[in-house]
Amino acid sequence: METLKHKIITEGRVLPGNVLKVDSFINQQIDVALMTQIGQEFAQRFAGKKIDKILTIESSGIAPALMTAQVLGVPLVFARKRKSLTLSDEIFAAKLFSYTTQKYTDVMIDKRFLAEGENVLIIDDFLANGQAVDGLLDIIQQAQAKLVGVGIVIEKSFQSGRGEIEAKGIQLESLAKIGSLDNNQVTFVD
Amino acid sequence: METLKHKIITEGRVLPGNVLKVDSFINQQIDVALMTQIGQEFAQRFAGKKIDKILTIESSGIAPALMTAQVLGVPLVFARKRKSLTLSDEIFAAKLFSYTTQKYTDVMIDKRFLAEGENVLIIDDFLANGQAVDGLLDIIQQAQAKLVGVGIVIEKSFQSGRGEIEAKGIQLESLAKIGSLDNNQVTFVD
Repeated sequence: METLKHKIITEGRVLPGNVLKVDSFINQQIDVALMTQIGQEFAQRFAGKKIDKILTIESSGIAPALMTAQVLGVPLVFARKRKSLTLSDEIFAAKLFSYTTQKYTDVMIDKRFLAEGENVLIIDDFLANGQAVDGLLDIIQQAQAKLVGVGIVIEKSFQSGRGEIEAKGIQLESLAKIGSLDNNQVTFVD
Repeated sequence: METLKHKIITEGRVLPGNVLKVDSFINQQIDVALMTQIGQEFAQRFAGKKIDKILTIESSGIAPALMTAQVLGVPLVFARKRKSLTLSDEIFAAKLFSYTTQKYTDVMIDKRFLAEGENVLIIDDFLANGQAVDGLLDIIQQAQAKLVGVGIVIEKSFQSGRGEIEAKGIQLESLAKIGSLDNNQVTFVD
């Protein structure tokens, strides 16, 4: 997706430890026109598939997931990262390791929001080692729902996530694939 | 906003402690058609005002804020609730007390995303005692930005938030105003 790649080149910032900051347009300030295009692009990449629901994780996944759900005309569900007073005990939960914070987090969704046999598309902002997707896959399996595929805004193709998802035979669509962040420089795969 | 009130009556659940759960359409599962209407309604209520940016707090504020930003064609910024590795030290921060979790939380945004003189519209999902709005007002003042107004999806009119915001002369637009949750029953103000 050329507009996204252009934005990453012009506004993305590479920090030590292979961290790519895109907080000026993806995950703190949101470029809404770009995010709308991202939703349209995901809808196109999974066109022809039966999709009942979009699944993501708070907070940075919500914007691209919502834009995709808007185009597809289906509900969005976001997994929460910690237990709150308003979350029921009747939950599906999974543990995931965050590359960014270097910590384990519990993610959970209310059992009412994912039903057996539902066709679920996962959307998230980043794919690195695939921990977030793993957690959501675990939840989808607990619910006996069906995974349609995984849509990622920015993939770090030099980390293990893509290989692990492909090994499971899952359709993975990433809008920008980063081959390297060496020397503080963003290099795309294609 | 009648469609929202109808949804609250049919799907909202009242829990002890004046908690209204709307997680089946607002803050875990999202009814995207309703959320799109919510964005259009906020844009209409603040029509004619100069708005440069929408400001909200993760996570539940993101969806209504994004839908509003989409209609207005302006960027959205969401305040984060805890420090992460990818958040710069150059931040505006404020403390807020959450009615739901009964805890203090730090909220913060990167200083790059709020500039002196910018016209900012606050959008959030709930207004109860006004703590979230207070925190965002504090951040807007630190940035020397200008507050255009506050848009709230669901207001608990029996708590102190509205009075405090009105006392500051701020335009407050709430799409559903709840007068009481007594006897596990939702009663609207009008």
